[in-house]
Amino acid sequence: MNDQANIKPYVIGLDLGGTNSVFGIVDARGEIKATTAIKTGSYEKAEDYVAACVEALQVIIEQVGGISKIKAMGIGAPNGNYYNGTIEFAPNLSWAKNGVVPLAKLFSDALGIPVALTNDANAAAIGEMVYGVARGMKNFIVITLGTGVGSGIVVNGQLLYGHDGFAGELGHVIMVRGKDGRSCGCGRTGCLEAYCSATGVARTAREMLAKTDRPSLLREMNPEDITSLDVSIAASKGDELAKEIYEFTGKMLGEACADFAAFSSPEAFIFFGGMVKAGDLIMNPIKKAYEESVMNIFKGKAQFLISGLDGASAAVLGASAIGWEV
Amino acid sequence: MNDQANIKPYVIGLDLGGTNSVFGIVDARGEIKATTAIKTGSYEKAEDYVAACVEALQVIIEQVGGISKIKAMGIGAPNGNYYNGTIEFAPNLSWAKNGVVPLAKLFSDALGIPVALTNDANAAAIGEMVYGVARGMKNFIVITLGTGVGSGIVVNGQLLYGHDGFAGELGHVIMVRGKDGRSCGCGRTGCLEAYCSATGVARTAREMLAKTDRPSLLREMNPEDITSLDVSIAASKGDELAKEIYEFTGKMLGEACADFAAFSSPEAFIFFGGMVKAGDLIMNPIKKAYEESVMNIFKGKAQFLISGLDGASAAVLGASAIGWEV
Repeated sequence: MNDQANIKPYVIGLDLGGTNSVFGIVDARGEIKATTAIKTGSYEKAEDYVAACVEALQVIIEQVGGISKIKAMGIGAPNGNYYNGTIEFAPNLSWAKNGVVPLAKLFSDALGIPVALTNDANAAAIGEMVYGVARGMKNFIVITLGTGVGSGIVVNGQLLYGHDGFAGELGHVIMVRGKDGRSCGCGRTGCLEAYCSATGVARTAREMLAKTDRPSLLREMNPEDITSLDVSIAASKGDELAKEIYEFTGKMLGEACADFAAFSSPEAFIFFGGMVKAGDLIMNPIKKAYEESVMNIFKGKAQFLISGLDGASAAVLGASAIGWEV
Repeated sequence: MNDQANIKPYVIGLDLGGTNSVFGIVDARGEIKATTAIKTGSYEKAEDYVAACVEALQVIIEQVGGISKIKAMGIGAPNGNYYNGTIEFAPNLSWAKNGVVPLAKLFSDALGIPVALTNDANAAAIGEMVYGVARGMKNFIVITLGTGVGSGIVVNGQLLYGHDGFAGELGHVIMVRGKDGRSCGCGRTGCLEAYCSATGVARTAREMLAKTDRPSLLREMNPEDITSLDVSIAASKGDELAKEIYEFTGKMLGEACADFAAFSSPEAFIFFGGMVKAGDLIMNPIKKAYEESVMNIFKGKAQFLISGLDGASAAVLGASAIGWEV
């Protein structure tokens, strides 16, 4: 009876995105038993964010029988550092933009359980490797297209952390050098993320609408309110301008992937996040630009896949996998 | 006596460069017992190149007591594939430019010993890890600045080969996109190699001389005859134009390294090859551009080192290290 009471069958996984924070309580087979979410929002201090998270978590923790049933927590977060359990200089998080936040420790103190943390895209890559389309692969790159552009790089079957835990920031390779580059949340200009994130796509839409008089369904909206989802909806209705926005975005992603191939020669690029719901609209231009751009020796070798798991699940499952290991 | 006769204390290491092919016969402690070299030259067929190599090798093989003393051979070669023992589509080798050359097998058949092969820059990286400035490092990138620009990437203490054995072609990331990019030997335009190899530096010199009337020691030469060595000599004499050529080259290398940091976050970039003889002339602009360009989280973390081994030795020793493992 006592033994039974001591079993801790669950871990908490947190997919901490620039917009949403999604929690899952996961069992050892990767089944999500309970889930909740809050807006990552505009908290000024990390402590306030953690307090809001813990409040939301209490409800689902009770659903599975209380905190005594929870072994640990795993977090996937932008600019998350696996080695230190910190988030450092995360451009899209108001409370971690300008410094080092010991997020694993804050959650551990608040919940009284061990907490591990990694980059959000690394968590997604682990999720894909354990439960998704990357099962059995040893060399692949997950590219997350959300509020930002993130990446999780697997080489020789291992996540690439680099010497300081921050490897895999492929959203911040420079695609447009010099004064013409768009400003990026990271404080520099011309980053892949400034063009190919959801916000980058919306910005491309505004630029294209302003530059021409061509008709488009997107003109029915206030330009400032256009999101990448609106572009996707317009494109799926056959809107030519919206399709061109995806072609522009996909071309840049494909060219970036050609450079990534020169680095780690993965067998697959796996795309993930809200923007991949556009399907072929984004994937076809990526593949076309990749094959046109990549070195001869890499042509025709890499697969371009869309995450087989629902976006949030893969990241939550990946984060939970980190949790099992603490 | 028979046992004694069966001991094979040496391996042959071959550093196969775009210009020179350097051979060393190496013992288990990494001591080079005999060495020779031939021009990699303009052989039409790989078989002719191998025949010329074997002829040169006979002399030093006899010096160490004959082929019975040689356990194996290791080759570091551009576009070398560790998995297959082949060279594939190597833009700087006339006899391996347009196809797949089974070089390990050709040497093995000619010499009657096992032969292993890897990318020339990977061989240099192994040389640095075992005998050079990267001793004890688990995450670093070797960048070779020679006829071409090559790279050997070590992550988690392992060489990064990728799924097909061709990872680490960092000379062929695109630094100038679109129609303004210089043509590269790989058939594309705008590659790092087209600017920062020895031939790229010579081309920069010709462009800068043609564009202005500024005085320079380099004007005493026929523009077509200028090499990166001439630029280095002029710069060391205080020639302002020559210094600017190195600043331009170093800036591009530093910006490229900033992108590489976003990929694998190495603790060191190690530069290697003829061009690093320019010392601070090239290293200072690299470091300056890197620190100005790199993401905040990487600033001030990476070391910029020059190979501690004489260039040819590190590559020969690295190639020989591959030989011990076959």
